[in-house]
Amino acid sequence: MDHWSSLSMGKNVLMERRERADAARNRQAILRAAEELLRRHPPEQVSVERVASAAGVGKGTVFHRFGSRTGLMLELMTERARELEQAVTEGPPPLGPGAGPAERLVAFFAAVAALAARNGNLMAAHEHAMVTRKSAAEQPREANPIYLFWHRHVSELIAERRPDVDAGQIAHMLLGTLHMEPVASQLRAGQYEGLAASFAAIVRGLMGEE
Amino acid sequence: MDHWSSLSMGKNVLMERRERADAARNRQAILRAAEELLRRHPPEQVSVERVASAAGVGKGTVFHRFGSRTGLMLELMTERARELEQAVTEGPPPLGPGAGPAERLVAFFAAVAALAARNGNLMAAHEHAMVTRKSAAEQPREANPIYLFWHRHVSELIAERRPDVDAGQIAHMLLGTLHMEPVASQLRAGQYEGLAASFAAIVRGLMGEE
Repeated sequence: MDHWSSLSMGKNVLMERRERADAARNRQAILRAAEELLRRHPPEQVSVERVASAAGVGKGTVFHRFGSRTGLMLELMTERARELEQAVTEGPPPLGPGAGPAERLVAFFAAVAALAARNGNLMAAHEHAMVTRKSAAEQPREANPIYLFWHRHVSELIAERRPDVDAGQIAHMLLGTLHMEPVASQLRAGQYEGLAASFAAIVRGLMGEE
Repeated sequence: MDHWSSLSMGKNVLMERRERADAARNRQAILRAAEELLRRHPPEQVSVERVASAAGVGKGTVFHRFGSRTGLMLELMTERARELEQAVTEGPPPLGPGAGPAERLVAFFAAVAALAARNGNLMAAHEHAMVTRKSAAEQPREANPIYLFWHRHVSELIAERRPDVDAGQIAHMLLGTLHMEPVASQLRAGQYEGLAASFAAIVRGLMGEE
């Protein structure tokens, strides 16, 4: 390899690195812009155009990074859910391992309620995206990987204290309440403390004292 | 009044009575036929034509008695709910007055689950009818008089034992689970024993021992 081609390769590597860094920066800027818009507007008003403009990128960049508006919405929700999953599996107690199952379950529902309130419009957009992608019957909420993780976590904690009940069914019932009116509209309005307290009352009763 | 006109009036009264009796019979026959069809078919397949044919009346009679298919569906659901309301307000314990609030609440959710399973397709048809009548946003489930009664009953029983919690919100959460998948699909399949047991576990925990 002569001096010139090695220099040119070095330039290419540098350019590729810069492009990858630009791509990562754009990706984060787009996600943050979408999150911010969804906090303040109903999901149907958050178009790719608006997100692109708020992120300071072209509309084509959004499509290039996320494939579609649906892809962007799914990615946002997945990122938030991944953070919660990490906190549950390896974070500090009471959300993470180390606390008793009742306190972990109380902490989990408080975290889910807070996430839902922070991303209330995002959850609606996410569900809309799932439904748009496939019909609701083909792609039920219970088949969503985020939901599957939440459901498994809640079921396991319930079963630990209450081997006498159908923990899987009760987990579905409790998680389902997040999507029901008037709870869902409270979450869309950013209110979650009251919901977390109601979950705590139900969970502490079901799980008994520790 | 001479003999002839009094005789003719007597004939009219008899004819009117017979017509009213026929109307009541038709009404019952139509409601029973609709209920039977909804037990075996998805609501969208239960047309006024099918109901009329199963009830042995003309299509026009159904429209005359109920105004529309929507009117028929609402009337069916209302009739079932009225029976439950009566059992709750003046029937024997534990559903009616006389038992403690925890046992009454367990009995109520068991009755609601059984009603929902018996009329699973009817509930779906009812909701569809409500949505068709007005948009879902204009006519939310919480504004439905049946829901209002159920919610008030559940709230009052919870508040009796747990003045420290938001009984109204927990009542919304518990009642909402009936409409969530996969609970709703169990009910459509006529299964309610498991759901009643899960409600009992949640309610007994929340309400404490009596």
